Amino acid sequence: MSIDLYGLSRVVGEKGVLPQRAKQLDPSLPCRESELLIDVESLNIDAASFKQIKGEVGGDAKRIGERIQEIVRERGKMQNPVTGSGGMLIGRVKELGARHPARELLKVGDRIATLVSLTLTPLVIEEVKAVHADIDRVDIRGHAILFASGIYAKLPTDMPDTLALAALDVCGAPALVARHVRPGMTVAVLGAGKSGALCLAQARRKLESRGKLLALDVSQGALDLLSGIGLCDVALKVDATQGVDVMEAVSQATDGQLCDLVVNCASVGNTEMATILSVKDGGTAIFFSMATSFTAAALGAEGVGKDVTMVVGNGYVPGHAALTLDLLRTEPQLLQLFGTRYV
Amino acid sequence: MSIDLYGLSRVVGEKGVLPQRAKQLDPSLPCRESELLIDVESLNIDAASFKQIKGEVGGDAKRIGERIQEIVRERGKMQNPVTGSGGMLIGRVKELGARHPARELLKVGDRIATLVSLTLTPLVIEEVKAVHADIDRVDIRGHAILFASGIYAKLPTDMPDTLALAALDVCGAPALVARHVRPGMTVAVLGAGKSGALCLAQARRKLESRGKLLALDVSQGALDLLSGIGLCDVALKVDATQGVDVMEAVSQATDGQLCDLVVNCASVGNTEMATILSVKDGGTAIFFSMATSFTAAALGAEGVGKDVTMVVGNGYVPGHAALTLDLLRTEPQLLQLFGTRYV
Ligand SMILES: NC(=O)c1ccc[n+]([C@@H]2O[C@H](COP(=O)([O-])OP(=O)(O)OC[C@H]3O[C@@H](n4cnc5c(N)ncnc54)[C@H](OP(=O)(O)O)[C@@H]3O)[C@@H](O)[C@H]2O)c1
Ligand SMILES: NC(=O)c1ccc[n+]([C@@H]2O[C@H](COP(=O)([O-])OP(=O)(O)OC[C@H]3O[C@@H](n4cnc5c(N)ncnc54)[C@H](OP(=O)(O)O)[C@@H]3O)[C@@H](O)[C@H]2O)c1
Repeated sequence: MSIDLYGLSRVVGEKGVLPQRAKQLDPSLPCRESELLIDVESLNIDAASFKQIKGEVGGDAKRIGERIQEIVRERGKMQNPVTGSGGMLIGRVKELGARHPARELLKVGDRIATLVSLTLTPLVIEEVKAVHADIDRVDIRGHAILFASGIYAKLPTDMPDTLALAALDVCGAPALVARHVRPGMTVAVLGAGKSGALCLAQARRKLESRGKLLALDVSQGALDLLSGIGLCDVALKVDATQGVDVMEAVSQATDGQLCDLVVNCASVGNTEMATILSVKDGGTAIFFSMATSFTAAALGAEGVGKDVTMVVGNGYVPGHAALTLDLLRTEPQLLQLFGTRYV
Repeated sequence: MSIDLYGLSRVVGEKGVLPQRAKQLDPSLPCRESELLIDVESLNIDAASFKQIKGEVGGDAKRIGERIQEIVRERGKMQNPVTGSGGMLIGRVKELGARHPARELLKVGDRIATLVSLTLTPLVIEEVKAVHADIDRVDIRGHAILFASGIYAKLPTDMPDTLALAALDVCGAPALVARHVRPGMTVAVLGAGKSGALCLAQARRKLESRGKLLALDVSQGALDLLSGIGLCDVALKVDATQGVDVMEAVSQATDGQLCDLVVNCASVGNTEMATILSVKDGGTAIFFSMATSFTAAALGAEGVGKDVTMVVGNGYVPGHAALTLDLLRTEPQLLQLFGTRYV
């Protein structure tokens, strides 16, 4: 018999609904054969969710903790009913179901972070131990359940949790970039923030010193930091919402050739045209920005008659966590940048 | 010097803005060197736009025509200020700029349809000759300008305009599918309507009698029509908004293997999970449905830990018009289906 890959059996009262969309999950013990049981240390609440709760109950740490407990008691998962968002968690493996795929990879006691959202993770909070309102973190005593399809990462022992979590949060981006870059390509990364820096580092590695690497951002400071540690060949200060300006800057920097691959890691909306116009005919664009509009991309490419393959950035690529942590370990300057900027 | 590929010089008063987003275009003559001038016969107004105008002015044909003339006089293009949408047009080539890329492919007098939206096409209406309110069409006397990047199709003489336009409207879909299908694949098309039928026909051709072709739709009628003319190996009646149900049906029809490629041609929202869950690990999903949500796709794949390449359906693929008309010509039963169902 096939296993319950997606945790459908944990959904309360809605047949055929996936845990993420379910109103309520059943987080009760025991752990089932396709599941992994986690002894939870702390929850990293999604920023938008934490802000909403703070606004609702006032800044008081105790009341924030109580509101979170209330939500989890009602829903069996930490999904903010207003923002709809979740977060991730850290804990130790407590039990491995007989048919869970990580059975050979993890052992009881291993410290892991879940890389799937808390919005689909069955959770019980027995006690809130501390609320760290400055970093949206809540330390708890309790348990959570990871389904067979649920992705996770073993936490490294050679770097601080906060640093590892910051990188793991966006680890799908460099891993997908690794699949698309070939030596000799011209590659541009739009938005030189956290995921942009990792994408540049990964692209540089895959280019094997051939081709050209462009970093584009609205912030000169961000560009200077990346140029300073050699993460790009060309840094262009542009506003990604201005499609034509970006195209002209990229065209000039590439002798009119434009790019084989453009990776969109911007944190604002309205950047589809800048991305599409900077790709050469036959090239590829990968959109990671969560502010990407599907119709703006589809109709935009058609409107300018551009033959571009447009890829939706999938947050999951097999091996993405290991690839990203390895990137940081082998690029000391990138690691340092992360440590000072994103922790 | 490089030519004005995107018609930036036709935008009035907003530097660096593309014609589609511009408030106003300058449609004045003469035709410039990078442009193509069209003697317009008729405008096919976008359905949502036509409906809005009808509602605004009442059903009267004369007043609908006047309102359209007013919009075009103000904006220099037919972009409905409420819906934001345009449509397409039919006309004859009147003049070819010295540096327009179609110079060797078209000649004065050729009948063409523009495949870029009226929202980016400079237009002058001298006279409204007739309003066909039942098919959202307006016959006019006037001229329009196509930029060097603007896509178009020569209208075939061996089929009715309405039939050719219905197919050209979605011609990007089968052309993109042609790039992704290899013999032996298992391919599913979700939504067996107009574009779905073309995608199935194109996929069947590329499979070269190896592999498996699945058609999925909520309407048994649509499925029966397609099965009846042999456009699929398996027809599954499913509701694409029910991700888990679809996955189970596809799993059963493929002996648990799922699909190498799933093409989403559904006309409703909330079908991202059905698409993603029906793809096997390492496979591909192409989203054509304009109701696709970028975040639902990106977060959905991550949430279920699925290694799927997700492609945004680009309405432009070189040669898409010719490929689609050829598909109809060489599949008499498909042509007949189109003639009875979509004209
Ligand atoms: N699907 C996935 O797997 C995946 C993976 C990684 C990232 N993402 C998404 O990608 C986006 C970026 O994430 P991140 O963590 O890298 O964010 P980030 O660290 O905030 O970086 C975003 C960068 O974009 C820059 N930016 C803002 N406005 C701009 C503009 N108008 N033109 C050019 N650059 C501009 C920012 O500059 P300032 O700092 O000056 O504002 C910043 O450097 C988010 O939406 C994230 O959710 C998705
Ligand atoms: N980006 C591009 O280049 C491109 C190209 C082609 C198409 N498209 C887009 O693709 C979409 C489909 O276009 P179309 O012209 O093929 O539309 P269509 O002819 O209306 O076909 C849509 C099909 O989806 C079916 N459907 C509706 N609800 C469903 C559900 N819940 N589950 C399963 N099937 C369902 C419809 O069945 P009923 O008839 O019973 O409702 C119909 O057969 C549109 O959004 C279109 O804009 C985009």
